[in-house]
Amino acid sequence: MRRTPIVDALQAEEASKEIKICGWVRTRRDAKGFSFLELNDGSCLKNLQAIVDEAVPTYEIIKDVTTGAAVEVLGELVPSPGKGQKWEVRVTKLALLGSADADDFPLQKKRHSDEFLRQIAHLRPRTNKYGAAFRIRSEAAFAVHKFYRDKGFFNVHTPILTGSDCEGAGEMFRVSTLPATGVEAPKEGSVFDNDFFGREANLTVSGQLEAELLAMGLGKVYTFGPTFRAENSNTPRHAAEFWMIEPEVAFADNVDNMDLAEEMTKYVVKHILENCADDIELFAKFVDKELMGRLENIINEPFARVSYTEAVDLLLAAKKKWEFPVEWGIDLQTEHERYLAEEHFKKPVIVYDYPKDIKAFYMRLNDDGKTVAAMDVLVPRIGELIGGSQREERMDVLLERINEMGQNPEDYWWYTDLRRFGSVPHAGFGMGFERLLMLVTGITNIRDVIPFPRTPQHIEF
Amino acid sequence: MRRTPIVDALQAEEASKEIKICGWVRTRRDAKGFSFLELNDGSCLKNLQAIVDEAVPTYEIIKDVTTGAAVEVLGELVPSPGKGQKWEVRVTKLALLGSADADDFPLQKKRHSDEFLRQIAHLRPRTNKYGAAFRIRSEAAFAVHKFYRDKGFFNVHTPILTGSDCEGAGEMFRVSTLPATGVEAPKEGSVFDNDFFGREANLTVSGQLEAELLAMGLGKVYTFGPTFRAENSNTPRHAAEFWMIEPEVAFADNVDNMDLAEEMTKYVVKHILENCADDIELFAKFVDKELMGRLENIINEPFARVSYTEAVDLLLAAKKKWEFPVEWGIDLQTEHERYLAEEHFKKPVIVYDYPKDIKAFYMRLNDDGKTVAAMDVLVPRIGELIGGSQREERMDVLLERINEMGQNPEDYWWYTDLRRFGSVPHAGFGMGFERLLMLVTGITNIRDVIPFPRTPQHIEF
Repeated sequence: MRRTPIVDALQAEEASKEIKICGWVRTRRDAKGFSFLELNDGSCLKNLQAIVDEAVPTYEIIKDVTTGAAVEVLGELVPSPGKGQKWEVRVTKLALLGSADADDFPLQKKRHSDEFLRQIAHLRPRTNKYGAAFRIRSEAAFAVHKFYRDKGFFNVHTPILTGSDCEGAGEMFRVSTLPATGVEAPKEGSVFDNDFFGREANLTVSGQLEAELLAMGLGKVYTFGPTFRAENSNTPRHAAEFWMIEPEVAFADNVDNMDLAEEMTKYVVKHILENCADDIELFAKFVDKELMGRLENIINEPFARVSYTEAVDLLLAAKKKWEFPVEWGIDLQTEHERYLAEEHFKKPVIVYDYPKDIKAFYMRLNDDGKTVAAMDVLVPRIGELIGGSQREERMDVLLERINEMGQNPEDYWWYTDLRRFGSVPHAGFGMGFERLLMLVTGITNIRDVIPFPRTPQHIEF
Repeated sequence: MRRTPIVDALQAEEASKEIKICGWVRTRRDAKGFSFLELNDGSCLKNLQAIVDEAVPTYEIIKDVTTGAAVEVLGELVPSPGKGQKWEVRVTKLALLGSADADDFPLQKKRHSDEFLRQIAHLRPRTNKYGAAFRIRSEAAFAVHKFYRDKGFFNVHTPILTGSDCEGAGEMFRVSTLPATGVEAPKEGSVFDNDFFGREANLTVSGQLEAELLAMGLGKVYTFGPTFRAENSNTPRHAAEFWMIEPEVAFADNVDNMDLAEEMTKYVVKHILENCADDIELFAKFVDKELMGRLENIINEPFARVSYTEAVDLLLAAKKKWEFPVEWGIDLQTEHERYLAEEHFKKPVIVYDYPKDIKAFYMRLNDDGKTVAAMDVLVPRIGELIGGSQREERMDVLLERINEMGQNPEDYWWYTDLRRFGSVPHAGFGMGFERLLMLVTGITNIRDVIPFPRTPQHIEF
């Protein structure tokens, strides 16, 4: 007999003579002549209650059916007289699949700190909070795919291993099959001549450049995959390995780009509210009391849009003490981003047309010669959620900008080639998937929206 | 005015007074007083024909509107008198977005070899074949997500960076921020004490172990992400970076596992046939004449299932000269796998219960003490498409197997922990996404189903 997932049992339309449920015991309560088990199998937040009468043949094993143990029960699905549950199971057969010694099992029924749970990241998916977080993560990922597919985008897998170390060499992880020690620099050529790829290889920090290549053939594409930063910074918003969503659209300008970013953010939030109601409710209740208001605001209000120059004026006019002084030309810091989104606009705000000197070479130079057609989406609590731009499609301007940034155009022969052969205006952005999840759940530490986070000194599991 | 993707224009229900089309010129033909342009924007295989009359104000730029150039046209969508196309555009405004010098543009209208196109992987998405391949890749990825979500699985992102080098150390890529040369082994401790993670870090070869951890909380999960092998082998079936789909199911045995593998394979093939008809037709016509028959067979016929022992008997009875001699205990080679699928069964075949000595420690030991509850799906032309097993859920047997394989149980404290706390029978498998795409398209080289393939000595783009 096939097991029925608890999510289906709880939504059953009618009682059932025989049902098989498997799950982990969240709690056991014993009464005279029978025991109540709260079972959870991960399929949803809610538990299913199973009642085991002492008449059940294997009732004597009940002493081992402790919190954390796994059981299989056969029984009858019947209406529950209890509050808050429509159905319960009257058990006719009980089997212990795996015990969980009550003295050792770390997830006893009590509140555990996030720090403690990170140390047992292999077990925390069995808690309400992390089960909910990872179910939401899954559904948000699906929403991303569905959104782009419905809009005619193609999902492309851009490479993780890259030979280009140009976008910030110091912060990349090097990938190698050479020995870790005892390697001497050769007299001629490069040490990497003998490496797997015959040249230096790194982990990608962004799939953008390759996504652009694909957009120039397929029109509208997006990547959704892991990216890497070797930044030695221990903040609640940074991880060494995280997932990014990067759409790239041919025949699009920076306004199209902002429209897409806003539409996508709203879509995913709405999809999660509609498809993960129970799990979101947990976060709204126990993690962030203002969560629902913020999510409703994201869905219902148009995002504010201001130029960088206007944003700087707003920051200068603000009656705030800034840790990082504000003047035209600075890169906005999290304190500035959060002020704009949280205090000034009280909703997401898109800042566009940034000074060219603080942005990458590939962003399209505006006619003023001072700014580029970049745009960032800033949201309350997080700051930057999305960063993007129209890309420089003009060969001469692009080459000038590569040189200005002190880089070598030959490293980008394939990238500049696209400006030689059927160049078109195009735009795209990158959204940190974990930041989106922090926004959606109210979770404040990036380590808690990633099943097995990687940060400096942490690579366990 | 917004551009209309060509896929939408071609499926229009009625003519339109004004439409904007952007795309790359596949061909231009000039006639007396007007020119025909075949435009493609990547949204589908088919081109849209645009007719530019010499009366169009900018008609003089037509000389630069060569193969590979990008244009924007405004015009009227009208019924086409030509064969094989319902609609065409009568252009009223023509703009050149980017030219493509006819002498330099590598993709002139002629047949190019796959080898040549790999060298210009940044441009090949603009060819019919690779456009089709990457659209199919996208749709197949969506089908995978949809299949699992509809069945109540959660998508989990298992880590790419791993501290465990246990599954085949020699074939892993090391990830480091230490200098590449001049590093000396320290007198005490490890050289990796000073590395980013404080220990040796590698790129994952499989998300399985972490997926198991998540399945023990969420019930049914799957990973779909990049995996890495540092094998220095140049075969048409191997790449250093490829994507894998790995479901992991709690409360499931090896028969459930085979059922899931078969159902999933059929689902994706069916989805592609239904959603990518034009693109598949290209492969059936020009790449593999037997493609449609093979795909129909996969959908309509139940997969064969035989034990490893039966499979060995079939191979011994076959009137074939084997390069690798057959006897009970050997690992099946591609020649054996293909014989079973192509010649003996003439359809996909699932081989189960392999000798324990050729399989990994985590596969569940059968009662015979000689075999494990593994299963591989073998398909015509490819050989192994899927490999999986029921996992060893019994702590004592698992520890014995880890020791037998000469590994250290302490490296797996979190993996074995799951057998201490609520252990349950569970099973899962890994499917190479690129092999699935080779099966679906008839493409024979893995380098041609990956946008930017990584193989020994190749990391360009």
